[in-house]
Amino acid sequence: MKTFDVQLGKRSYPIYIGENLLSQPQYFLDHIAGENVFIVSNEKVAPLYLDKVLDSCKKLQCDYKILPDGEQFKNIATMEAVYSSLLEKHCDRNTTLIALGGGVIGDITGFAAATYQRGVHFIQVPTTLLAQVDSSVGGKTGVNHALGKNMIGCFYQPRCVIADLSTLGTLDDHELCAGIAEIIKYGLIKDIELFIWLEKNIQKLIDRDPESLAYAVHRSCKNKAQIVAEDELEQSGKRALLNYGHTFGHAIETGTGYGNWLHGEAVACGMLMAARLSIKQGWLTEQDYSRIETLIKAANLPTQVPKNMNVEEFLQLMSVDKKVRDGKLYLVLLNKIGEANLTANFNDNLLEETLLEYCDK
Amino acid sequence: MKTFDVQLGKRSYPIYIGENLLSQPQYFLDHIAGENVFIVSNEKVAPLYLDKVLDSCKKLQCDYKILPDGEQFKNIATMEAVYSSLLEKHCDRNTTLIALGGGVIGDITGFAAATYQRGVHFIQVPTTLLAQVDSSVGGKTGVNHALGKNMIGCFYQPRCVIADLSTLGTLDDHELCAGIAEIIKYGLIKDIELFIWLEKNIQKLIDRDPESLAYAVHRSCKNKAQIVAEDELEQSGKRALLNYGHTFGHAIETGTGYGNWLHGEAVACGMLMAARLSIKQGWLTEQDYSRIETLIKAANLPTQVPKNMNVEEFLQLMSVDKKVRDGKLYLVLLNKIGEANLTANFNDNLLEETLLEYCDK
Repeated sequence: MKTFDVQLGKRSYPIYIGENLLSQPQYFLDHIAGENVFIVSNEKVAPLYLDKVLDSCKKLQCDYKILPDGEQFKNIATMEAVYSSLLEKHCDRNTTLIALGGGVIGDITGFAAATYQRGVHFIQVPTTLLAQVDSSVGGKTGVNHALGKNMIGCFYQPRCVIADLSTLGTLDDHELCAGIAEIIKYGLIKDIELFIWLEKNIQKLIDRDPESLAYAVHRSCKNKAQIVAEDELEQSGKRALLNYGHTFGHAIETGTGYGNWLHGEAVACGMLMAARLSIKQGWLTEQDYSRIETLIKAANLPTQVPKNMNVEEFLQLMSVDKKVRDGKLYLVLLNKIGEANLTANFNDNLLEETLLEYCDK
Repeated sequence: MKTFDVQLGKRSYPIYIGENLLSQPQYFLDHIAGENVFIVSNEKVAPLYLDKVLDSCKKLQCDYKILPDGEQFKNIATMEAVYSSLLEKHCDRNTTLIALGGGVIGDITGFAAATYQRGVHFIQVPTTLLAQVDSSVGGKTGVNHALGKNMIGCFYQPRCVIADLSTLGTLDDHELCAGIAEIIKYGLIKDIELFIWLEKNIQKLIDRDPESLAYAVHRSCKNKAQIVAEDELEQSGKRALLNYGHTFGHAIETGTGYGNWLHGEAVACGMLMAARLSIKQGWLTEQDYSRIETLIKAANLPTQVPKNMNVEEFLQLMSVDKKVRDGKLYLVLLNKIGEANLTANFNDNLLEETLLEYCDK
């Protein structure tokens, strides 16, 4: 088991990464102050892992809520259902919420913890690769709005993250690959060594080689924790780099209807589109682009946008992105593999040209 | 015009108290970073004051949302409507929200600011006495749930509070008195001088004597700011004292259906009930109780609970209060006028006895 802290002063917390952590009570009990927990999970994950968590927390009063599975349920209606359950079970301010599932469950549960009775503790127990390498760390919580992805939410940090690598064995292949997309992202924005490692080891990851998965999760969490510690509330521009590919990706997710593309799949395609625009700006070489495309394809991730989306729709959806400031869209673009920057100084025509290339295919 | 700061380190902010502040642009413009504002108001307040705020902000892009008036609309459905408007108007993270109205508008707008795109700036412009002396200061934001008052929300501080005393001229009498309830509360929990002043000057307040109103608003805000600075997130028990009478009061509000009793009216009755229990515990004298009752009656505030509520309903509603910890209800009770404490060490039978006395009437 490996562990290290996300350094945020009073709000610092540990990330535990290892095999069979769900069955080890201490990782939970060390971070629970009160006498009861409330677990939020979904129909897919609960049958596999809920009993383990209940067993680890058996000293406490345990209640739970099982949600339907999918991004299409990450909305305010689901929040209402969670709040109602919390109140029906008489959960109070000393209750600790536990998010048992992927990114959607983590985002919903974190937002519920941030807003139930003005804030209760919560623990992230990510069971997908995407959640383990990215969404469970850093305190971004929230839900989608019909008009835009992740538009409603808070920054609210968990008390700990328990990343049990054993849970990755039960993932669908496409969920595994969706997680790989976010690992590739760290390589692209700040970690050239990780990118090179991925070029050599991508097949091992897809084959779920335990050592390779452990390395990738650990290295990704380290990257994420470092950026979050530098810019918790996304104020300096540093944390925004983590959204590389996401403005395009969010447009795909919203445009196709939440739940039709996995988040990681949309981000993979978005990263390629952002790389294409970076070339057009003269910032990225064709050679780098080609390495990125090769890696994304090797990870069985999509490189083409959904057929039903056009340029106008992309531009409209991107205009309500959280990266818009005073009416101007900011994008994360690449200078080279391992170096990104947040900028509003891209050429609007080149953005349209980029979208046209993808939407024409 | 008087001003002083709520001292919260990086989150400190000024409270401005005076006449005709709405027409003076600097109080707004000094606290707006971006190029646009989004005003939230209601059908009662907007016709009176929206134009003044729009005029003060005319250098900026201004949008607004007018909500129906009343506590019954302080819910998640209204939040959704506000989020939709913000997105339709392309409000981004540099947008500043302005809450123009009473406590309901302030709570909704503050919660929207806390959760829209994970947080935007907001300004409190309280137009009722209750909002000026209490709810606009201190960063409590949120909405009600059918099962409990203020159950969903965040701590999220405004950038400033602009308390324009001129707006009190258009208040209904019962709204004015509802505000007086919270002023009496400060007297009871920590400010015996204010209580004595109220005993002498209550009629002047009811008659809206400008100097008396200015004194009461200023002194109340000072009391509130001091407590909030000591215990922003209600962790030490200090801030909880501000909820004197509120656990009983929230039960009345929820039990009668939000919007049927004004918050301040329910709190007034709740303060008397809490005082009655304090007597039974042997902590408060009959003489003090009688002074409290006399003052509450002089302020034309209710001293009897709604006829349709019974003891069982009170106990059930109070059991989901935010003051419950690990299943045990904490109440704010009085030692004497000017001194309160938060305690779980009251006798449950005496609580039932108290409720029975009120519910029998």
